[in-house]
Amino acid sequence: MKTVVLLSGGMDSSTLLHYVAKKLGYGEVYALTVDYGQKHRREIEAARWQCGQLPQVKDWRLLDLSLLGELTRGASALTDAAISVPALNAVPEAELDQPPTYVPNRNLIMLALAAAWAESRGCTDIFYGAQAHDQYGYWDCTAEFVERLNAVLNLNRKHEINIQAPFAGMRKVEELAIGLELGVDYAHTWSCYRGGARACGECPACIERLEAFAAADVVDPLEYEPR
Amino acid sequence: MKTVVLLSGGMDSSTLLHYVAKKLGYGEVYALTVDYGQKHRREIEAARWQCGQLPQVKDWRLLDLSLLGELTRGASALTDAAISVPALNAVPEAELDQPPTYVPNRNLIMLALAAAWAESRGCTDIFYGAQAHDQYGYWDCTAEFVERLNAVLNLNRKHEINIQAPFAGMRKVEELAIGLELGVDYAHTWSCYRGGARACGECPACIERLEAFAAADVVDPLEYEPR
Repeated sequence: MKTVVLLSGGMDSSTLLHYVAKKLGYGEVYALTVDYGQKHRREIEAARWQCGQLPQVKDWRLLDLSLLGELTRGASALTDAAISVPALNAVPEAELDQPPTYVPNRNLIMLALAAAWAESRGCTDIFYGAQAHDQYGYWDCTAEFVERLNAVLNLNRKHEINIQAPFAGMRKVEELAIGLELGVDYAHTWSCYRGGARACGECPACIERLEAFAAADVVDPLEYEPR
Repeated sequence: MKTVVLLSGGMDSSTLLHYVAKKLGYGEVYALTVDYGQKHRREIEAARWQCGQLPQVKDWRLLDLSLLGELTRGASALTDAAISVPALNAVPEAELDQPPTYVPNRNLIMLALAAAWAESRGCTDIFYGAQAHDQYGYWDCTAEFVERLNAVLNLNRKHEINIQAPFAGMRKVEELAIGLELGVDYAHTWSCYRGGARACGECPACIERLEAFAAADVVDPLEYEPR
């Protein structure tokens, strides 16, 4: 069985990579990482490292899509150096459903590229690490988004592609429990939205990650900025 | 009124650009052309030329997406030098609904990029020159494809984007009539799938173009290979 996995190097997609290879038994995994000009480039190194741990990963591609940062100039805190990533408690409530860290249409672009690769390699599945966020949300991480995009891809007349997002309905702590059971080394994953040498511990991605580790009663092996 | 137009420099999208600016009255047009490693690079020059004719075009972007050619290696005659573009009459009937000139998922990728740009520029529309083909077809040029993709994009919580494909239900000759009425100079459009100095006159794109001109009783101003 072969498949494409969209891999950022964050907690969700790193867990997914191990889940697909070890739990679902895919023996031929094509992992796709996209450099879209994000500030947190350490996750790209994490993606590479995770792929190196799994003999099931037959090919890892890092796509340079830094043009996305240029197209979305002024529209996202993740790609524009002039826009700072707010601490979670500094995000106004009215913006929680589409916060400054949302990158316009990034996930659809990445999934469309993944589908092109899957089709060219004869894979019928793409695995996508979207995870339901409790406090903070993106429209392109929901199960409904995946369902509707599958309705598009299923129009393909020769190579129907199906996106699978097994974590979309889970809480982060449930997903973490799966990863811990599968032996994922979370020291080699990166979640922080900021570009620092250590994880900031206060951006939305750090807060969610830390809360999941706390709920699992496990110490996060990453080093955080002292506060 | 402002909008993004996906512009290849072919007959359909060049007609669309003029239609949007002159007929629909959009005064602020952002034109997006994607270099996906296609053999027929003259269409990119045509796209640039058409934009120069219209003061309504405020910005033209040429995105380098040549990585798509690499991802789809072996899967399309448009991007792989090792796969030749067949003459229309050499395409087996069973392949007409997804012929060798289909590029895996290209249109979804381009529309997703266009949507990112539209969102960042505060546009709510994207114009897409998909045209119903009589003999030759692509799943990602149909009205159903546009409708389903709009169902995806309408999940966006702050910036609903709507793709409009006004030519999707038309025959090419009807679209050509609109373009001729609007004064489109078809000498500066390019349709041929092959990379030659002159249009080949026998690939599917040339055949459809020539048939439309013949049906409109107008001489195509492009120069063709003598046959």
